[in-house]
Amino acid sequence: MKPQVVTFLIKCPDQKGLVAKITSFFFEKGFNILSCQQYVNAIENTYFMRIRLSAEGTNISKKELENSFLELATPLNFKWSVNYDGKKKNVAIMVSHTSHNLYDLLQRHKEGTLNCNVKMIISNHDKLRYIADMFDIPYYHLPITKETKQAQEAQVIELLDSHEVDLVVMARYMQILSSKFINHYSERIINIHHSFLPAFQGANPYKRAYERGVKLIGATAHYATEDLDEGPIIEQNVEPVTHESTLENLKRIGADIERLVLAKAVKCHLNNQIIVSGNRAIVFPEAGE
Amino acid sequence: MKPQVVTFLIKCPDQKGLVAKITSFFFEKGFNILSCQQYVNAIENTYFMRIRLSAEGTNISKKELENSFLELATPLNFKWSVNYDGKKKNVAIMVSHTSHNLYDLLQRHKEGTLNCNVKMIISNHDKLRYIADMFDIPYYHLPITKETKQAQEAQVIELLDSHEVDLVVMARYMQILSSKFINHYSERIINIHHSFLPAFQGANPYKRAYERGVKLIGATAHYATEDLDEGPIIEQNVEPVTHESTLENLKRIGADIERLVLAKAVKCHLNNQIIVSGNRAIVFPEAGE
Amino acid sequence: MKPQVVTFLIKCPDQKGLVAKITSFFFEKGFNILSCQQYVNAIENTYFMRIRLSAEGTNISKKELENSFLELATPLNFKWSVNYDGKKKNVAIMVSHTSHNLYDLLQRHKEGTLNCNVKMIISNHDKLRYIADMFDIPYYHLPITKETKQAQEAQVIELLDSHEVDLVVMARYMQILSSKFINHYSERIINIHHSFLPAFQGANPYKRAYERGVKLIGATAHYATEDLDEGPIIEQNVEPVTHESTLENLKRIGADIERLVLAKAVKCHLNNQIIVSGNRAIVFPEAGE
Amino acid sequence: MKPQVVTFLIKCPDQKGLVAKITSFFFEKGFNILSCQQYVNAIENTYFMRIRLSAEGTNISKKELENSFLELATPLNFKWSVNYDGKKKNVAIMVSHTSHNLYDLLQRHKEGTLNCNVKMIISNHDKLRYIADMFDIPYYHLPITKETKQAQEAQVIELLDSHEVDLVVMARYMQILSSKFINHYSERIINIHHSFLPAFQGANPYKRAYERGVKLIGATAHYATEDLDEGPIIEQNVEPVTHESTLENLKRIGADIERLVLAKAVKCHLNNQIIVSGNRAIVFPEAGE
Repeated sequence: MKPQVVTFLIKCPDQKGLVAKITSFFFEKGFNILSCQQYVNAIENTYFMRIRLSAEGTNISKKELENSFLELATPLNFKWSVNYDGKKKNVAIMVSHTSHNLYDLLQRHKEGTLNCNVKMIISNHDKLRYIADMFDIPYYHLPITKETKQAQEAQVIELLDSHEVDLVVMARYMQILSSKFINHYSERIINIHHSFLPAFQGANPYKRAYERGVKLIGATAHYATEDLDEGPIIEQNVEPVTHESTLENLKRIGADIERLVLAKAVKCHLNNQIIVSGNRAIVFPEAGE
Repeated sequence: MKPQVVTFLIKCPDQKGLVAKITSFFFEKGFNILSCQQYVNAIENTYFMRIRLSAEGTNISKKELENSFLELATPLNFKWSVNYDGKKKNVAIMVSHTSHNLYDLLQRHKEGTLNCNVKMIISNHDKLRYIADMFDIPYYHLPITKETKQAQEAQVIELLDSHEVDLVVMARYMQILSSKFINHYSERIINIHHSFLPAFQGANPYKRAYERGVKLIGATAHYATEDLDEGPIIEQNVEPVTHESTLENLKRIGADIERLVLAKAVKCHLNNQIIVSGNRAIVFPEAGE
Repeated sequence: MKPQVVTFLIKCPDQKGLVAKITSFFFEKGFNILSCQQYVNAIENTYFMRIRLSAEGTNISKKELENSFLELATPLNFKWSVNYDGKKKNVAIMVSHTSHNLYDLLQRHKEGTLNCNVKMIISNHDKLRYIADMFDIPYYHLPITKETKQAQEAQVIELLDSHEVDLVVMARYMQILSSKFINHYSERIINIHHSFLPAFQGANPYKRAYERGVKLIGATAHYATEDLDEGPIIEQNVEPVTHESTLENLKRIGADIERLVLAKAVKCHLNNQIIVSGNRAIVFPEAGE
Repeated sequence: MKPQVVTFLIKCPDQKGLVAKITSFFFEKGFNILSCQQYVNAIENTYFMRIRLSAEGTNISKKELENSFLELATPLNFKWSVNYDGKKKNVAIMVSHTSHNLYDLLQRHKEGTLNCNVKMIISNHDKLRYIADMFDIPYYHLPITKETKQAQEAQVIELLDSHEVDLVVMARYMQILSSKFINHYSERIINIHHSFLPAFQGANPYKRAYERGVKLIGATAHYATEDLDEGPIIEQNVEPVTHESTLENLKRIGADIERLVLAKAVKCHLNNQIIVSGNRAIVFPEAGE
């Protein structure tokens, strides 16, 4: 059996001796440090750490560890979280019409490369139910109109909460979420936007890219915030296009970029690689994982 | 001796039989077609052709060829131009403070991979004169203030015109050109903007990219038009960056993208690979050249 | 209804007047040329053309067109083929253990972006049958041992031929095919190799890439030929990796490269974009299609 | 004045508590840790660290620091080195005929983005002396024949040693160096090879790439070892090419890849980002530097 891996994400004011203090703490508790990644934002004088520990040979319970860590964390003003990799996160995927991101996420989930439970698919249309059926995932069709918008959102929230969903993936869900919803799942909603933000924020990015005659098209995965398409960027990529690329071509090329960008962002989140700091996402690379 | 290569760029309303008519014309004149590239914009019903001919074994003069071609071109509503590759284009480079693009263009020119005469460097500062001296290119320092803006521009135009400059390369020239200037050299001014347009139009793109937390930075070479940073895009590229990248890092990484993007755009222009159509640049790839 | 599109692929000795002759031929038959792409290999003095025609407004049958074209083709020594896009190609996918390429191709097929009929999946293992079932494609499990190798291959050929398969896609089919098989489907078998060929030909490319400490890993789609991994390359791509990337990471990153590279190569083949010339594949880009 | 930055590179057998011990050591000496990067090779059970310290507010001399560190390092079996960034490394560039890498390195050096002293250029030809003159760097023309090979190499070594050269950059120096030379400057010679190794090791990589019909060409910077083109890879990159790309095109496209790859590798070395481990180079990314 693989030993339990424990991941701490820490954010605090920078000061001398932080690495020494934190790593000594875990060493004394008997943990082996698998990786220890840091980032210092010198402008804001802020320190970030992602540290992965092997619990092999230790007996300390999660509760005990947390209580003990609090004694270190409180005087140093840590904002922190801890994750035990034995506990998979629960994920809901929200979609409207386009299938490519959904297929991609479900394929990865089925192949075992997305470390999560896909609890449900929620859509304002019934169109993609057949994909949910193929992969044997519950599909909730919650249609939406101007009049029912608020009620529908309440239904969505109830569904998510009753299934203890940890992460909402908006895989081209073409509805604007309310501030209430966004804040309820702060830093737990990942959206895919089909342009290299901040270019072509808003609607119809491929069409506008075509009209602008760009030579690259792209996609951006970001945490959803109240300001649409303004949230912290997790992952972006682009592909070259030419004058020959029709709008249909752009959509097709873009679909592949979207798939990879969204999957990578979701993976980073599930893998506890991300700390949000204001409008920026600190995304630590995988460390031999 | 290499035989003369003649390149026609043609734009016209699309209709049946264009390729046949044009290629038959050149075949009958005794030219060998080295490459024949086309693009049809189906939305605007417009046809574009770039055709390269070997003049080997033909005796027809440029004048005769043009007159003869006019008989084909006029009834079919061609907009067209012809270039003989024996005649190098004259180029002026305009700079302010940053050296990397200038070095790069002059290096390529000296190594013989930019097919042009670099006639002069024009700057509103004296700072980069030493580079002009290294490469033995005339350097004109034409300082500019709010009051002298108009007069300085007149000086620039006079310089360019008196040296029969065919192409103006704005290699980070940090002054806004007047509409008069822009229109005087319509489709003959290439500008490098240090972002992947349309993201971060305007000033300080690297700073804004840093603040937005993007995961890619880029550069865009485009023809200058009256609307700043809105002209037809010739070439774009990006490089990945991370949260670790400081503003200084972004500038350094960006400098390399700028150099390659600008050099490629200039090369495409000098090589007669570009036809502008509205706000889009049709950039034909090299065809075994 | 979309008008029928007819695509000719032509290869012949280069000579003056070819474009004019070919395009005039189609013009006179009443076709509209949608795109006309050419390539001249100056070293081998060979000419290649891919020409797409709209049959709208013409009445000529395929038989008549072919007979008529023969009169042009024979004296000029054309090797040529013609495809009517109404007739979808039949495809068989061969797999062993790995699922990512198979999923990807079936997803694209289901989404309608691969213009073909996926007739069957053939495997030497039963492991991936569930995917065939999900997508409702016949799955043939034809196990293989040293003793049965020849017999199994005969079964495969019979299956392919009886279903009039036009293209065999080896999506990580981990068996070496006999020369007889390869030649029977010459230029109609596409293989994915999980390295950027010619690096790491043969077995275990990811392991060898790890050991060599490369900073890029890649994948290559090529036509299968008798010399393993030596066939004409259709498409290649790479992704950056670092010293942190474990062998498992390389495999996971590589899987995404493989998926895109194989899908693109298959698409190019189905779309009649490829002419093979010796050990090189001429792959014309899409032309506004 | 910028405070002194001290960089330690450490390699040792992995064991519990290393981070804590090392960072505590520096904390107690009064250093502020600017960045602390680690890598654990789990297969070989080896630990690697790059730690950058600000000496601001400390008084300890280099000698004292080294002696003190030895007491930590010896029982833990560290292989280590320490660099003070105030002391620039001395660099020699070796070239033969091609100018693009030389120009590029000298440009960066002149612009202040390569943190080193370029002490000299050594060539077996006199061809590129004009570039040395442009940038005002001493140029040593040491011609070589079969008969004088050994003597010439002795001259090179004497030159390098008398100028205390820390790094030799082979910027397309087309001579094979003896084992003696290689070992004399072990892990201090960076070579650029004009292919994505291990593909096309040896001579004429562009020609062989053309003949193989690859769709990507690349370049590789690596430490020179006795086995030609087999040394630890520092940096690699590729660019897409097509069937249209002639051998001349490949060379031109490749030149730009070479320039960037070599410059990046040299920068990583000068910046103390690299630890060699067997045939693999651990290249830590810049950490907010």
